[in-house]
Amino acid sequence: MMRSFIEVGAESPFPIQNLPYGVFRPRSDRTARIGVAIGEFVLDLSVLDKCGHFQTTGVAGKNVFDQPSLNAYMALGRKVWKEVRAKIQQLLSADEATLRDDAVLRDKAFHRMTDVELLMPAQIGDYTDFYASKEHATNVGIMFRGKDNALMPNWTHLPVGYHGRASSVVLSGTDVRRPQGQMKPPAAEAPVYGPCKQLDFELEMGWLIGPGNPLGEPIPVEEAEEHIFGLVLVNDWSARDIQTWEYQPLGPFIAKNFATSISPWVIPFEALEPFRMAGPEQEPQPLPYLRSTGAGSFDIHLEVSLQGASMGKPQRIATSNFRYLYWSMAQQIAHHTVGGCNLRPGDLLASGTISGPEKEMRGSLLELSWRGTEPLEMENGEQRVWLEDGDRLTITGWCQGEGYRIGFGEVTGRVLPAGKSS
Amino acid sequence: MMRSFIEVGAESPFPIQNLPYGVFRPRSDRTARIGVAIGEFVLDLSVLDKCGHFQTTGVAGKNVFDQPSLNAYMALGRKVWKEVRAKIQQLLSADEATLRDDAVLRDKAFHRMTDVELLMPAQIGDYTDFYASKEHATNVGIMFRGKDNALMPNWTHLPVGYHGRASSVVLSGTDVRRPQGQMKPPAAEAPVYGPCKQLDFELEMGWLIGPGNPLGEPIPVEEAEEHIFGLVLVNDWSARDIQTWEYQPLGPFIAKNFATSISPWVIPFEALEPFRMAGPEQEPQPLPYLRSTGAGSFDIHLEVSLQGASMGKPQRIATSNFRYLYWSMAQQIAHHTVGGCNLRPGDLLASGTISGPEKEMRGSLLELSWRGTEPLEMENGEQRVWLEDGDRLTITGWCQGEGYRIGFGEVTGRVLPAGKSS
Repeated sequence: MMRSFIEVGAESPFPIQNLPYGVFRPRSDRTARIGVAIGEFVLDLSVLDKCGHFQTTGVAGKNVFDQPSLNAYMALGRKVWKEVRAKIQQLLSADEATLRDDAVLRDKAFHRMTDVELLMPAQIGDYTDFYASKEHATNVGIMFRGKDNALMPNWTHLPVGYHGRASSVVLSGTDVRRPQGQMKPPAAEAPVYGPCKQLDFELEMGWLIGPGNPLGEPIPVEEAEEHIFGLVLVNDWSARDIQTWEYQPLGPFIAKNFATSISPWVIPFEALEPFRMAGPEQEPQPLPYLRSTGAGSFDIHLEVSLQGASMGKPQRIATSNFRYLYWSMAQQIAHHTVGGCNLRPGDLLASGTISGPEKEMRGSLLELSWRGTEPLEMENGEQRVWLEDGDRLTITGWCQGEGYRIGFGEVTGRVLPAGKSS
Repeated sequence: MMRSFIEVGAESPFPIQNLPYGVFRPRSDRTARIGVAIGEFVLDLSVLDKCGHFQTTGVAGKNVFDQPSLNAYMALGRKVWKEVRAKIQQLLSADEATLRDDAVLRDKAFHRMTDVELLMPAQIGDYTDFYASKEHATNVGIMFRGKDNALMPNWTHLPVGYHGRASSVVLSGTDVRRPQGQMKPPAAEAPVYGPCKQLDFELEMGWLIGPGNPLGEPIPVEEAEEHIFGLVLVNDWSARDIQTWEYQPLGPFIAKNFATSISPWVIPFEALEPFRMAGPEQEPQPLPYLRSTGAGSFDIHLEVSLQGASMGKPQRIATSNFRYLYWSMAQQIAHHTVGGCNLRPGDLLASGTISGPEKEMRGSLLELSWRGTEPLEMENGEQRVWLEDGDRLTITGWCQGEGYRIGFGEVTGRVLPAGKSS
């Protein structure tokens, strides 16, 4: 097994097999730049680049790491990403002296995680959210439209998705203010304005787009993975009472656009290859433009925990797995671009809530509490139907290798009370 | 009446009362910069700025005109926009010698329209499309859900809107490729893939956001107009057959994200003041967060013309007016941000199709041909139900003053045949 000269425990999310990319700012020097996580450290790629260590790769002379976002690097494509990744793995490997034995370079290139501030990894031009979990779509459908109409007729034929709000995608750690808005309680004659009373999370994963495509030139499904730079964890905060009232006929709007949180470390698509597997069988067979050969899913374990203001520690409330997604990332990309829509470097596509076949695999409070009829029992005796002010919601995830983990870190956020009414 | 020393005819869209902003590139010098339109000319604001003519305004020292987008200028807010506009009007006025009598400066500062290339006026971070015309929503509702369920119950209580695709907002003049996608013909057992057969336009107007708001801090309705930098014409190209199949439950996606066209000149909000008027009466009265005092609409005449490949000239197929919109721009902004969603300088908000009370005021082919049952008769004997390959669709608009027009120029685009199937 590949090992780094930096010591990394078997349960660390960031061994040499992972090397996720992030944008960071050392607390001592306020300039944003790009690094990879390794154990408890961040390796500063802008330093390695300036010292000429990437001269044999496709980033040479492009200055893509001394940047406040990954966009320029993401635009370069898989061949270059692989070259850079191989070079970093070589420099970090236990058998390689270049970095290991150069105290001066090491001192410049490594930062303790605790000494840096993580920033948004990309400038997200457009954010798209899908609805790719059959279990989630079915659960929601049963609650809102009854068992017989649970899945819309289109659902098994195409990856349903909608455009989300890019401006309010925030970094993990950002507190989220409970939105106010318009809703119509079932018993009310007329809609009311006030703080959302059904605040929810959604367990999702997202992927950041690499090169992308020109307007008018769809990405064929077989080429779609070439455009996936890497993956992050996503919490698509949702205001269910606002959503119920507003969503017809044009979809969710205020219910979703107050915040979407993403994790700071972008896991390279390459790091996930050992965990590739087939997704659920697709019946009916999709139309040819959505048909791909080979396994298109990945075995990524996911966990959700909640910690209320008066709880001593976080409590796990759900586990799920990326593999349960019905539609693959490649299919979602192919569908997104089928009409000619252009994807640009840094665009974020997210999966929609990832619910699994079991009850504890439900990826939202809406499903976990079955629209409020089955409150969650918390260890301190409290119950939860929806998120309460002060609640911290955290999503983690990893791929379990033999003796190592490809960890995603976490996406976390705390609920702040609604602002004063306008 | 204010007059410029540049001669401008009474029917010109760009008199001294207008002065729309645009981003342009002289054909002789490929650098993008910002100008205003005056008659047949573009006045280069970066030249005036370098010569110190804006020293007494809030743009002094900020270099906002020597830029490839209006975003930096839009961020400065109404007070600065007014100062700059007053200064430009002074410099252009017939009685003012500074520019009029300085042949060297005039030569540097003025470009003939025919000698410049117009570019996208803003870097659009997010694009939002509303559904603010009651006539349009009612027409569509009758066709899709029948007369009794035409308007969804939420429609008269909030400005329904959805997030659109920012990457595919294109400048007027860009040809639009007919999208391919998935649709389900009514008689078919299963969905099919192929070129859209129901390609449509939507007559809309859009406004570009100025300062905007921080995440979590809604814009009150009474302050909303302060965030409107200016207006453009919008054609929200739509694939009706794709939309019908995909839109439930999360709204339009592929049906809209292949292209949205905007006009290049951004009409300053200030130029529209003389044409302010009350919009339609709102019944029921909206909730307080959507209630504003004063007139919130504007008298803007709109026209749509279509020219097929074998037609000698464009034929007008619809006229409408911005005043028919039920929800005001201020209400749309207040609603957009009510949950805390942040708007950023350069964001585009659009009205949705602007249909009026009369049959010829329908702002889409869907409505004009009543879903294909009432084909449009063209002057050369052809009929139109949907857009055909080679059709050029053009939207124009203006406010009619006494002896002058505040013109919006046009947004135009030609339909290209679908690409080869993937």
